[in-house]
Amino acid sequence: MNVFQKILASHEVSCEGDELAVFPDQVLTQDATGTVVFLQVEAMGIKKAKPDVVSYIDHNTLQVDFRNHDDHRYLQSMAAKLGIKLSRTGNGICHQVHLENFVKPGGILLGSDSHTPTAGGAGMLGMGAGGLDVAVAIAGEPYYIAKPQVLGVELTGCLKPWVTAKDIILYLLKKLTVKGGVGKVIEYFGEGVKTLSVYERATICNMGAEMGATSSLFPSDENTFAYLKSLRREQDWAELKADADAAYDERITIDLTTLEPLIAFPHSPDHVKTVTEAEGTPLGQIAIGSCTNSSYKDMAIVAAILKDKTIAENISLVITPGSRRILSMMSQTGVLQDLVEAGARILEVTCGPCNGIGQAPASGTNSLRTYNRNYRGRSGTADAQVFLASPETAAVSALYGRITDPRKFGECPKVDLPERFAESSNMILSPRGGAGEGEIWKGPNIKPVPLGSPLPPHMDFSAALKVKDHVSTDDILPGGAKMLALRSNIPDSVPYVFSRLDAQFKDKIDRLPEVWALIAGENFGQGSSREHAVMVPMSIGMKLVIAKSFARIYRQNLINYGVVPLTFADFDDYEKISPHDEFHIGEFPQQIQSNRVRIYDKTQDFFFDTRCDFSRRQIELLLQGGLMNYVKHKI
Amino acid sequence: MNVFQKILASHEVSCEGDELAVFPDQVLTQDATGTVVFLQVEAMGIKKAKPDVVSYIDHNTLQVDFRNHDDHRYLQSMAAKLGIKLSRTGNGICHQVHLENFVKPGGILLGSDSHTPTAGGAGMLGMGAGGLDVAVAIAGEPYYIAKPQVLGVELTGCLKPWVTAKDIILYLLKKLTVKGGVGKVIEYFGEGVKTLSVYERATICNMGAEMGATSSLFPSDENTFAYLKSLRREQDWAELKADADAAYDERITIDLTTLEPLIAFPHSPDHVKTVTEAEGTPLGQIAIGSCTNSSYKDMAIVAAILKDKTIAENISLVITPGSRRILSMMSQTGVLQDLVEAGARILEVTCGPCNGIGQAPASGTNSLRTYNRNYRGRSGTADAQVFLASPETAAVSALYGRITDPRKFGECPKVDLPERFAESSNMILSPRGGAGEGEIWKGPNIKPVPLGSPLPPHMDFSAALKVKDHVSTDDILPGGAKMLALRSNIPDSVPYVFSRLDAQFKDKIDRLPEVWALIAGENFGQGSSREHAVMVPMSIGMKLVIAKSFARIYRQNLINYGVVPLTFADFDDYEKISPHDEFHIGEFPQQIQSNRVRIYDKTQDFFFDTRCDFSRRQIELLLQGGLMNYVKHKI
Repeated sequence: MNVFQKILASHEVSCEGDELAVFPDQVLTQDATGTVVFLQVEAMGIKKAKPDVVSYIDHNTLQVDFRNHDDHRYLQSMAAKLGIKLSRTGNGICHQVHLENFVKPGGILLGSDSHTPTAGGAGMLGMGAGGLDVAVAIAGEPYYIAKPQVLGVELTGCLKPWVTAKDIILYLLKKLTVKGGVGKVIEYFGEGVKTLSVYERATICNMGAEMGATSSLFPSDENTFAYLKSLRREQDWAELKADADAAYDERITIDLTTLEPLIAFPHSPDHVKTVTEAEGTPLGQIAIGSCTNSSYKDMAIVAAILKDKTIAENISLVITPGSRRILSMMSQTGVLQDLVEAGARILEVTCGPCNGIGQAPASGTNSLRTYNRNYRGRSGTADAQVFLASPETAAVSALYGRITDPRKFGECPKVDLPERFAESSNMILSPRGGAGEGEIWKGPNIKPVPLGSPLPPHMDFSAALKVKDHVSTDDILPGGAKMLALRSNIPDSVPYVFSRLDAQFKDKIDRLPEVWALIAGENFGQGSSREHAVMVPMSIGMKLVIAKSFARIYRQNLINYGVVPLTFADFDDYEKISPHDEFHIGEFPQQIQSNRVRIYDKTQDFFFDTRCDFSRRQIELLLQGGLMNYVKHKI
Repeated sequence: MNVFQKILASHEVSCEGDELAVFPDQVLTQDATGTVVFLQVEAMGIKKAKPDVVSYIDHNTLQVDFRNHDDHRYLQSMAAKLGIKLSRTGNGICHQVHLENFVKPGGILLGSDSHTPTAGGAGMLGMGAGGLDVAVAIAGEPYYIAKPQVLGVELTGCLKPWVTAKDIILYLLKKLTVKGGVGKVIEYFGEGVKTLSVYERATICNMGAEMGATSSLFPSDENTFAYLKSLRREQDWAELKADADAAYDERITIDLTTLEPLIAFPHSPDHVKTVTEAEGTPLGQIAIGSCTNSSYKDMAIVAAILKDKTIAENISLVITPGSRRILSMMSQTGVLQDLVEAGARILEVTCGPCNGIGQAPASGTNSLRTYNRNYRGRSGTADAQVFLASPETAAVSALYGRITDPRKFGECPKVDLPERFAESSNMILSPRGGAGEGEIWKGPNIKPVPLGSPLPPHMDFSAALKVKDHVSTDDILPGGAKMLALRSNIPDSVPYVFSRLDAQFKDKIDRLPEVWALIAGENFGQGSSREHAVMVPMSIGMKLVIAKSFARIYRQNLINYGVVPLTFADFDDYEKISPHDEFHIGEFPQQIQSNRVRIYDKTQDFFFDTRCDFSRRQIELLLQGGLMNYVKHKI
């Protein structure tokens, strides 16, 4: 068996069709997604979390207005209420703090953050998921994933000086592209694995997310033991290795000796070339940190390169260490002083700039970052060009003021890694008397999330809107900073629904019937997976979408919120019907279970057929009015 | 002579009526005001600064979008062009860095920041001024101030444990109120002075600004020498003491022994009570730093209080050290580690939160800050309550989670002050080849500032708007975050001009004549002193304001930008004229010099008289089209 199979074998996992139903041992959330997760937990009436949950505050800590601190306080009050742990504002980046404090080889971790697979660096199966999936897992329900293929990556040889773990994952991104990991768990094995510390393995697993992988995994070995020991957690270690004859669905071999420093060009993490090819590109900003490269080791090597030197005049060098424990150790060993004296700007230990929260580069300038994503505009500056590389490449480039092959620096400095980190758990609040403690604190921008309604036996309705093909979730509900600030506020988001498709829609909202349908063309709901594009129209009565076809994730989101997605059996019917028509559906639950729903157009006096294609679980969700109702009734 | 008189006597100062014309030795700017200052310097065609100028980047470093970093790059390019120093982003708070690197006892410093008097802690006369005044001083012109009274404050005795310099200035604020320093220089003398280090004196001088004082001053003595020596600047020291028989216009005596820990309640710095009276007030946030209390000493005492403890669960404790040099020393001595391990959030070394840039408290919560101002809404949260106190009170309160008299802690810890700070000048860029270097870098949000036009010999015009009494600068041009982001962009501010007075005004802008007048009632231009309320309407042709009366600062701003303020000789004429009338003024320059301007209403065929009351200098400015034109022609 390979490592992935061994982890599944040691857990209660059931197979439902093509899906695996998995119960995670641990769950993590972060503040950007967490507020809605806990509003959903509240809406389901959950009083106590089933798995071990840690709620992190690490994404947005700028507090440019009251809403940010209000969110932090809400999360803290919900943690006390549910009896879960809370990592306080400024304690560090969730994946880094989780590695330090909670990750266990052989365990399963689910997180409302796409980089949850970072835990794979220490042999734990980490998976990122949508907010509602995570809320439901907190309630003790399983998490469903498509059964993944296992891609075995054999590492041989060892890295040459100045070549790093970041270059390994950039190499894979170049080879496999940003789609190369979809539906796969990437598992590393071979002699080369031994040459990599957990710090380095975590970097590699972290950025497997950029290949779309379900997860990434390293074995748990003596390096894993040494890492956990340095954190006073040797008792959490367990050996975990693939059997000698382990099988993989696919295999790749990488000879580490052949790699050289790599860099991702704008605007995709798989747009990878050698640093030599980028040599001399002028820079305005260099940013070191993020869940990919903010370990003590990363900080120490950067400090060793910058020690007794000064960064170039044209560079703003911003550094975000990964955790408070790392910052404290950096202060103790002099690493911090070396960075400060070289001219680095030390920011709070958060994700911040990686996610476009602060440190937006100047107009039209180039920024070199050790982060994981360089999508256009993600930095906060629409016309900035973002490059991704290792901390070593970033540090040497900071001295030269332009992209520079680190080998130009000369000998690669050696850094000492601490044998023992100080105890540092005082900023992780643990439930004292279990769940139920204190009052839930809600600022004025935090409003309850809506629940769907059970499927009625019969339904009379009209259509509120008829739209064409390829309508995206952005068309349904716009993205951007303004909407982001309304994430925890569904009622205030309502005026923006369908605003791109029909500027007058907001004036019609007050006059909508209690339930209504949307008529759509092909590929309805393409684009970003955010659930708000379902939650908001559902909250004002959308109970049905009748379309030629649906984007996959949007369709599942509709079902999760109790909105019925039906597809025209005959596309001509799309043309025939008008949104002002009145409709009737009889024996709705029975029809859905028969996989075909016949609809009567009362206005034009004709029947038309629609198809369903629901699984047994999906039918159950629709009958009960969505996943939250389903879980609410179950418990 | 007192210290103030001695400083004036050693400088080239001339007396013009009630005003003193002073040439500062040094000038400082910061990024919030500096971008416009340097745009004005550019508009005046100045190629080289006359005094020693340091341009600081310390207020806004969050970079939530491209405009912030664009501003930083513009400032850096202008510094190179003018041959002045630039303190790079993240190098620290201007007043702290200036104290460390440039302040000279006996010198005169002008700054485009109201807390410039901080320099008085080391015996330098520091004065804050408006942006245009500073731009003109950079050009080598004098700075004009109303001749101040000198208020002598005699300090006797010495502070008891837990009572601090902050409590001295809070005591004075309580006694004299926020208006108590207007038109005055506050000069400290007496035996108690010797008991205060420069760190503490700087805190006191800093917050003299909250009393409206022109400046605050301490003598330069052996403590000043020790401070400068710790910074390797003993050569900059000079003794400076008041003569034994020095006279003061007013005198107050404070017996330091009688003081106790004080705190300013919301929403004014003079709303001061004892900490005992506030004891037990619940808190959500505690913020330590700002130009008032961010010295190494402040940081060290806070760390000594928090060492080996953890802050209360309900507190977000944010700390902003004053400079990179302080941060580096904190790292070296373990002060930083103690703070981090106790749970403090270490932010970048900037002014930030003090000015409402980040760290807005949660809705309706209380925040205790070591800052200097607690005006309603300044924190960024309209309904937050901000208290001001010493770092000692803040640190002890952080442990208890509510406002706590620091004496409750027990014995006051002693802290060691470094005898010698490390060299730290590598983040202050010095002009290499003098002025003229490099290209000026301007982002798309940075636009040239408009220049006024010389007074025409005759003028035909209509009135664009007629408004009533007590129109404020907010009515003329709104304040708030959106307008703040347009500070360096006059053209994009135009659509907002008069928007509060006439929602349709923006539609009329394109059809305005080349020059036009505004007709106003009494007290026109009251409120905030910002010059944009003149610059923006001037840029679209406002050449005359005819009012019943003017707010003092707004009237001077009009003159500075070449707009003529005239007052109705007979208020009945205000009623008679209509904004649609056509007017004519003949022999305008001659009339202005005769202190009376007769205007012909062509439409209604009658003459009316207006008064001027201009000084000789004001007439000169109006003739040339404002201060920038005046300076431009002079050089």
